[in-house]
Amino acid sequence: MAVENNGNGVQIEVPKTCKAGVVVDEGPNFRVEVEDVPVPEPGPNDVLIRMNATGICYSDIHYMLMDLPLPPMSHFGVRSPGHEGAGVVVKLGSNVTNWKVGDRAGIKPAYDACFNCELCWTGKETHCDESPQIGLQFPGSYQQYILSPARYTQRIPDGVDDFTAGPIMCSGSTIYASIKESGLKPGDWAVFPGAGGGVGHMGVQLAKAMGMRVVGIDGGDEKKELCMKLGCDAFVDFTKVKDVAEEVVKITDGKGAHGVFVTATSASAYASAPMMTRIGGKVLCVGLPPAGTAVAGADPLLFVGKNLHIIGTKVGTLLDTQRALEFAARGLLKPIYEVFPLAKLPDAVEKLRSGKVAGRLVVDFNS
Amino acid sequence: MAVENNGNGVQIEVPKTCKAGVVVDEGPNFRVEVEDVPVPEPGPNDVLIRMNATGICYSDIHYMLMDLPLPPMSHFGVRSPGHEGAGVVVKLGSNVTNWKVGDRAGIKPAYDACFNCELCWTGKETHCDESPQIGLQFPGSYQQYILSPARYTQRIPDGVDDFTAGPIMCSGSTIYASIKESGLKPGDWAVFPGAGGGVGHMGVQLAKAMGMRVVGIDGGDEKKELCMKLGCDAFVDFTKVKDVAEEVVKITDGKGAHGVFVTATSASAYASAPMMTRIGGKVLCVGLPPAGTAVAGADPLLFVGKNLHIIGTKVGTLLDTQRALEFAARGLLKPIYEVFPLAKLPDAVEKLRSGKVAGRLVVDFNS
Amino acid sequence: MAVENNGNGVQIEVPKTCKAGVVVDEGPNFRVEVEDVPVPEPGPNDVLIRMNATGICYSDIHYMLMDLPLPPMSHFGVRSPGHEGAGVVVKLGSNVTNWKVGDRAGIKPAYDACFNCELCWTGKETHCDESPQIGLQFPGSYQQYILSPARYTQRIPDGVDDFTAGPIMCSGSTIYASIKESGLKPGDWAVFPGAGGGVGHMGVQLAKAMGMRVVGIDGGDEKKELCMKLGCDAFVDFTKVKDVAEEVVKITDGKGAHGVFVTATSASAYASAPMMTRIGGKVLCVGLPPAGTAVAGADPLLFVGKNLHIIGTKVGTLLDTQRALEFAARGLLKPIYEVFPLAKLPDAVEKLRSGKVAGRLVVDFNS
Amino acid sequence: MAVENNGNGVQIEVPKTCKAGVVVDEGPNFRVEVEDVPVPEPGPNDVLIRMNATGICYSDIHYMLMDLPLPPMSHFGVRSPGHEGAGVVVKLGSNVTNWKVGDRAGIKPAYDACFNCELCWTGKETHCDESPQIGLQFPGSYQQYILSPARYTQRIPDGVDDFTAGPIMCSGSTIYASIKESGLKPGDWAVFPGAGGGVGHMGVQLAKAMGMRVVGIDGGDEKKELCMKLGCDAFVDFTKVKDVAEEVVKITDGKGAHGVFVTATSASAYASAPMMTRIGGKVLCVGLPPAGTAVAGADPLLFVGKNLHIIGTKVGTLLDTQRALEFAARGLLKPIYEVFPLAKLPDAVEKLRSGKVAGRLVVDFNS
Repeated sequence: MAVENNGNGVQIEVPKTCKAGVVVDEGPNFRVEVEDVPVPEPGPNDVLIRMNATGICYSDIHYMLMDLPLPPMSHFGVRSPGHEGAGVVVKLGSNVTNWKVGDRAGIKPAYDACFNCELCWTGKETHCDESPQIGLQFPGSYQQYILSPARYTQRIPDGVDDFTAGPIMCSGSTIYASIKESGLKPGDWAVFPGAGGGVGHMGVQLAKAMGMRVVGIDGGDEKKELCMKLGCDAFVDFTKVKDVAEEVVKITDGKGAHGVFVTATSASAYASAPMMTRIGGKVLCVGLPPAGTAVAGADPLLFVGKNLHIIGTKVGTLLDTQRALEFAARGLLKPIYEVFPLAKLPDAVEKLRSGKVAGRLVVDFNS
Repeated sequence: MAVENNGNGVQIEVPKTCKAGVVVDEGPNFRVEVEDVPVPEPGPNDVLIRMNATGICYSDIHYMLMDLPLPPMSHFGVRSPGHEGAGVVVKLGSNVTNWKVGDRAGIKPAYDACFNCELCWTGKETHCDESPQIGLQFPGSYQQYILSPARYTQRIPDGVDDFTAGPIMCSGSTIYASIKESGLKPGDWAVFPGAGGGVGHMGVQLAKAMGMRVVGIDGGDEKKELCMKLGCDAFVDFTKVKDVAEEVVKITDGKGAHGVFVTATSASAYASAPMMTRIGGKVLCVGLPPAGTAVAGADPLLFVGKNLHIIGTKVGTLLDTQRALEFAARGLLKPIYEVFPLAKLPDAVEKLRSGKVAGRLVVDFNS
Repeated sequence: MAVENNGNGVQIEVPKTCKAGVVVDEGPNFRVEVEDVPVPEPGPNDVLIRMNATGICYSDIHYMLMDLPLPPMSHFGVRSPGHEGAGVVVKLGSNVTNWKVGDRAGIKPAYDACFNCELCWTGKETHCDESPQIGLQFPGSYQQYILSPARYTQRIPDGVDDFTAGPIMCSGSTIYASIKESGLKPGDWAVFPGAGGGVGHMGVQLAKAMGMRVVGIDGGDEKKELCMKLGCDAFVDFTKVKDVAEEVVKITDGKGAHGVFVTATSASAYASAPMMTRIGGKVLCVGLPPAGTAVAGADPLLFVGKNLHIIGTKVGTLLDTQRALEFAARGLLKPIYEVFPLAKLPDAVEKLRSGKVAGRLVVDFNS
Repeated sequence: MAVENNGNGVQIEVPKTCKAGVVVDEGPNFRVEVEDVPVPEPGPNDVLIRMNATGICYSDIHYMLMDLPLPPMSHFGVRSPGHEGAGVVVKLGSNVTNWKVGDRAGIKPAYDACFNCELCWTGKETHCDESPQIGLQFPGSYQQYILSPARYTQRIPDGVDDFTAGPIMCSGSTIYASIKESGLKPGDWAVFPGAGGGVGHMGVQLAKAMGMRVVGIDGGDEKKELCMKLGCDAFVDFTKVKDVAEEVVKITDGKGAHGVFVTATSASAYASAPMMTRIGGKVLCVGLPPAGTAVAGADPLLFVGKNLHIIGTKVGTLLDTQRALEFAARGLLKPIYEVFPLAKLPDAVEKLRSGKVAGRLVVDFNS
């Protein structure tokens, strides 16, 4: 069990089996069980990570429900979903030189990329044709010991604990990437439909940390309270305000937002977003409504009349995630999460599946 | 009639009356007649321009038909449409110091701007709240002698004749502005649905002059011939090709276009444009379908999946127009036009109103 | 004395004479005296402002010493320097429609611009050929009542008092403009040689408000204390550290700064700045050493080897200043200043002339 | 000798030995001889390329003279310099899947990069810490059969012959990268000190192909003739014109250049470049004078007064080189070169070492 190529002489004992949350009866009636599974052996370019925490994301539910136009996990021989988690490197593949046993490491949605195409060379590697999804095409972070390509594994900086790191790997990096792509500047007005949600509440914090002025949009007093606590300059409650866009324009100096980050997943959020922007303003598509249920767009007249931009952005790159983690390390980004012990992983999944969850759900592999 | 403040001692005789194309029976049954009208007297900050040529644009038809959700010309006491033309300055307002009698000058759609707002300070003055339209809110270029604010009148460089300058003031500057906003780089693939039209054929020329690779999309062999002559690297005939987007993707290295400039005004052109772009590619909204008949947009999934950008751009600024004119002066932009003598101005309007016109129609005030 | 065209019916009494700090014996032995001078009458496009506060800037000293390669104030018939101040509009020129009597207004270094050139249209109006300096070519803010072109007078937002506004008009807007031009992003490392000075201490605050990580460079414990209080992540004392650049590189993840804003005015600050940047990093020239005493530059090998950028930026535009003021209104920018009553204006000038001053000096016209 | 993993079933016979230009007596009295050397065996991630042509670059001379502050070739066990060449892949390492035997391939100065750092992820891989130089740290393109990492080998597009490709790998990609970094736009004025040289003459062609207006600076009628033939809008002969910068300003609308690309290697070229730019203009450092003999820079007053930018750029990335090759494939970039047969390789080196060469020298391995 001893590791020879550990990079720093440290040896961590690696068991033969480990715990894993696995899907049973994939499809509409799926359930998750915690089982013992073999600990995988790293290939020459892999690291083996022992997870301390994994987040639960609604994409996991989609994969297990098989309700997306994608091959199911079982097609790839995968039983454990999960694509946001954090732990420690315990074993190195024979070629690995850029990691040491004991280094902290994280799992993010994109498993790898080719690093040999224009997209990979220009900071868009999550769009690479050869970028598979962990937790779908490769065993995911519901499994306690997990493999990851050494060149595409996330480092976790000091000052960010594993529970905090988890949600940043997926939703935090996603909204970081979107804000970056928007080109919004400190001082600009950033508006977040879905501000109180898993992605939105991190967007609010990041935008504030970047010096922007922020309007949160969400429904209900609890969401309002959360948003104001996170630093929103104003909040619009879509359950109370008749014309949300009009209200946002009024708040944003009567001109509209510089950027609207649609982290909500409703068709109505997408329909109203273009009405909220000022001349030259941008709508960023982040939240994903079920396919075919929403349009991000407008009459060409509106586009031309106000120099409207609508832009879609995906989960963050390795670099985006690193940057988002740095904001967390500086105390400027604190995802809200609820922790479940490993034994309650199936309950956590069920909770997320069945309804609305405030913040993110995280499973603690060590309790 | 002598001009004292001519700026250079030159005096040009200005008559008391001049010819003008004026609208009669505004509305669905309008007609245009050529009449004698008084030559206007410049206010302190105006120049008086004697037009040598005016273009005829379909927006003129819209204004005279009163089929846009805008007050009619008569509401502003205006009888002559026209917003693209070229001539010579013949008289200066008392405060004017930046023009001389005899200078060549052009008329473009935006009559003026405030130069005291963020939009005016940052190269977006055509979006200024105080930017009225000439030929709608102020007498337009169908009138032989016309006023223009000295600070917002276009200079016409040497090497660009008045017939050439006219169409560049409106459609040339529009597509120049769109290409600029797109951020496309030399070497990139630019695609023009509507490539053989009034705006598109100038876009093709500009994109080629900027080192881009260009695909024209239009219908019919005549359009194809024109596009290839203008330098298109490839042409897609939408009357013959089943899946235009698929064909464009094939041509553009199998990846799709860096930018699609929708100069066509059909809903189908807007619907297919997002399918033609590569990852990170851009759709530019330029052509204006009748309000409510088209959507520029897509499912958020498509936006996210390919980092799609859809952007609207308006007619060019004074600076954009200057730059477009410079390309003409260098022989790199040659609008296609048909010249009518002044007496035939009503026929030119009728021709444009009744159907398709190849290139632009220009009226020669001196014949 | 009543104002007819006051824009809102408000009338403010304007006296015939007012107090002004004026220069006597321009040149190496100049002194400043407080005198009664006539209150000027606004031209048709001017506003008359009653100043509540004026800052004292070292440029004023230069103008009075006549030690710059510029014509002296007397050449322009000007006796009062001063280019940063704040007050209230008390009278409007006959053409003025965008101001009301009673509006708060500020004075910034550039008196006006032409708004009819490429620089003015693209957010660079402070570089316009026709942009004169107030306090040199036009009477400055040491004069209690002062004229300013209506189109180029700064508005002061609620939440920013006149003492705070003053220094932001000049040094605050200067460093805001420099940070904007640098393109630095939230999360990047910004380094300020001269961090404890008049310009630097505002740069530190702005950079922090924008989410950057900041290193202050200055000399002495007092400066250190100030810098750390303002939020610097680290401080380098050039009186104690042997190789300042090496130290900065160490602090900035071993890679160097993304941007170095040279607000110091020493040749050594300029010499070391290029050594502190990471690959692709930027040196911003802000502080002005006496002509001929410093070089901003490096061996071409260094430029090529690390993709070095050196960039110069000037005082902020009207828009930059507005943005800087907004940061102040949000409580994110608080210039440090010492207030002098009007009678002590000569002492304030003398203090600045004779040596180092912590923060800015501001004169209160109402005490 | 048969290749199993050839990717397409093609087999190319690979000899045991091949010809190579090797350095003898490294140092001030070095000479080059053509010898038989063993053909190297590809490692698992390498391709073996049979060169058809190699360029001779003055950097080769530097390496053999040992006059740079770098370890000599012999320190790395290398005897053949050369970093620009083109040929065909003849054998694949066991892991290689992205190349096929028979593919055309090129050699560029950077041998590899880590693709696991921020620089590699953001299009700056030539600045990666782990980017060694071929022809210095690894056997270079003077050797007929040469190894290259599969992930970092340049593809050569159809329409570019091997002689043309060679010089583009180094100098063509260098100036392409510099133009890209400058951000200059079609229509802008680009000025090339050293326009008639190996790098400059490709810069002129690329800038013209991108729609820029171009001024060439060089000495003598032959250079002038070349520059005008390549499309320069104007030429300034520094042997005849007293104040080169003044002349350039005059040509460029009296305002100065948008960008000055210093491809010359003289201190005087660097000294005058900042005087030639317009407000906001850029000086690009490309040519490398001997260390310590030149400064790229200016008085901070000049930087501030005209918003001057000085920027250094290095040899192009893999992507830059691909783009430069595409311009060649489109017939828009034609490097000027002189071909030597393999036996004359030593003469070619001697010619370059001893004096000025018009265009590039290329060795034909097949003659």
